[in-house]
Amino acid sequence: MEHYLDNSATTKTLKESAERALYVMTQEYGNPSSLHSMGFRAKLVLDEAREAAAEKLLCKSAEVYFTSGGTEANNLAIFGAAEAKKRQGNKIVTTAIEHPSVLEAMKELEKAGFDVVYVKPDRDGNIPAESFEESIDESTVLVSAMLMNNEAGAVLPVKEIAAIIRRKQSPALLHTDAVQAFCKTDFTPRKLGADLLTVSGHKVHAPKGVGALYVNEKARIRPMLYGGGQERGYRPGTEALPLIAAFSEAVKRAGSVKESTAHAESLNLYLREKLREIPGVEINSPQDASPYILNFSVDRIKAETMLHFLSQREVYVSSGSACGRAKPSHVLKAMGLPKERVESAIRASFSRFNNVEDIDALVDGVKAGIETLARF
Amino acid sequence: MEHYLDNSATTKTLKESAERALYVMTQEYGNPSSLHSMGFRAKLVLDEAREAAAEKLLCKSAEVYFTSGGTEANNLAIFGAAEAKKRQGNKIVTTAIEHPSVLEAMKELEKAGFDVVYVKPDRDGNIPAESFEESIDESTVLVSAMLMNNEAGAVLPVKEIAAIIRRKQSPALLHTDAVQAFCKTDFTPRKLGADLLTVSGHKVHAPKGVGALYVNEKARIRPMLYGGGQERGYRPGTEALPLIAAFSEAVKRAGSVKESTAHAESLNLYLREKLREIPGVEINSPQDASPYILNFSVDRIKAETMLHFLSQREVYVSSGSACGRAKPSHVLKAMGLPKERVESAIRASFSRFNNVEDIDALVDGVKAGIETLARF
Repeated sequence: MEHYLDNSATTKTLKESAERALYVMTQEYGNPSSLHSMGFRAKLVLDEAREAAAEKLLCKSAEVYFTSGGTEANNLAIFGAAEAKKRQGNKIVTTAIEHPSVLEAMKELEKAGFDVVYVKPDRDGNIPAESFEESIDESTVLVSAMLMNNEAGAVLPVKEIAAIIRRKQSPALLHTDAVQAFCKTDFTPRKLGADLLTVSGHKVHAPKGVGALYVNEKARIRPMLYGGGQERGYRPGTEALPLIAAFSEAVKRAGSVKESTAHAESLNLYLREKLREIPGVEINSPQDASPYILNFSVDRIKAETMLHFLSQREVYVSSGSACGRAKPSHVLKAMGLPKERVESAIRASFSRFNNVEDIDALVDGVKAGIETLARF
Repeated sequence: MEHYLDNSATTKTLKESAERALYVMTQEYGNPSSLHSMGFRAKLVLDEAREAAAEKLLCKSAEVYFTSGGTEANNLAIFGAAEAKKRQGNKIVTTAIEHPSVLEAMKELEKAGFDVVYVKPDRDGNIPAESFEESIDESTVLVSAMLMNNEAGAVLPVKEIAAIIRRKQSPALLHTDAVQAFCKTDFTPRKLGADLLTVSGHKVHAPKGVGALYVNEKARIRPMLYGGGQERGYRPGTEALPLIAAFSEAVKRAGSVKESTAHAESLNLYLREKLREIPGVEINSPQDASPYILNFSVDRIKAETMLHFLSQREVYVSSGSACGRAKPSHVLKAMGLPKERVESAIRASFSRFNNVEDIDALVDGVKAGIETLARF
């Protein structure tokens, strides 16, 4: 019996989403740019998928640009905005707890001469809006702050950051990496005040290899790829139609955010309670974090060791994020947690398909691990 | 009865390839970067796919970098090479008949200060190796020449270009867009002497949304995307595992190049003969072009009109390339064909799944079109 509690790394593709991909691959295999009826039908599949994504984001379909995933969407937003706005200033504001696809892009922009400010979280993992006050000014051209952190689950005050940008009359475009929040919390780019917003398919039970960037109709960014003009020039290349259709299928079937959030909350609460009973376990996630993520440390047992132990029991969790691989979490480090606690940190992340048995299996596994594994 | 003769635009995904994608989506859905056994299994799927691609290209698996498709691979090769080599010179050589994902990237490099030479084809559509002699010198940092043209089917002398680069002791990296040649002619990047080589999945009966760039182990390019370090840093982002696995499945099942080429040759020859009997039809493809493509013009009938007419008869061909959409072909223009002939050009492109009935349907359609459609 598999207990997959690593849903922030990736999710199982929904059966209906996978079948939609299969159908498009074998039946609607035309190129959306072809002028014959097979191309026209493929274009309809593309248009419908874009409509579905726009409906979920409550934006115009012309504001949705499909990409190959979250990394590409984040890079396109960041490099694209920096390049488009560089004549207005050279300051960029982001946070120390972003995904590597944001942080590594920022490092490149620093090399290119931009002045990047990395706002730090407080000890409990949150970043209050006031922390952005100082660094956002009339020379700031881009602010990139994730909506929901992927390691500890902190929820960032994106809406308040938008208000600061407006109040300070900063020319900055506001980007938010909403990969972990999409289909899990109720938000819209408009209500957030975000100009650019990233979502990814494989975190919402669609296949790996597809994502989207929302670009507000008034915002202009510079493309990264050049070619046949697809996605109105922002993202050329023959559209990954099977994946795009599968993505929209998963999004349409995501169901009620309220219900799945309530479900995640009950699992999260249950896990917190169970973990509290185990000596040597400490919770790293903020108290008011996303219910979909619970990060905790097991005193003096290396995360990797515990993770392998749990894996043998078919309980799948992660140490930090998948994209960080074996490196100690930059997020927990930024929170100021001691080295040992960072190195022993485990992330459990839930989907609407998890249940109490999964949590019990995790808790039993952690207890057994504590009894069995050597401490460092 | 469908007659799909637009295989250079895109192909129908092979059943086994599509089913492999479905299997990976729903069964091997781990993140290859995850450290638990589901991640490990996903990593195995990725490694096997890379091995299969390397086996087909007769290169090392460490030289294969998966991308989201041909456009991204071409852009990565071109921008990546230009950026990595810019200290050694600012001259780039390409051809006037490349795919838009090469030509548009070149335009950007011109804006960035590179001096780009566009070598032109002769009237019959070929580009002899001597045409490159003059422009390749010690300040040339990149030569990009496609292996097989996607509109008229000309085969370019890539191997001879490599020899010119060596002989002139030019520091240039040699890139070839082999999208139309992959699984259709026998080549290897090593025999060609190419440092960078692009292939795409959806032209070889794999799904849209995946491709690969071969990068010779001795070549260094600059990445375009930054993030979690996947594809050894050349192409970060969670790997599009279902598509990558489906791509390798299609490549493994591509069968004998010799047989499918012989099949394409017989279809091509048959179509040439039949078209020769129709007054007002002229062949645009070079005599020694790839057998997989036959480009012809129907006197004074706009390509789009003929294409729609044929489409109603379930015969699917294209005017120029899908990526060029309705624009008159830059390839036929570069060949110096008169405007009317360019505007009436139709491309039929074959796969190993086409048969004589498809050709007959096309020929009957063209004849009926000539009788029915208004001439301009």
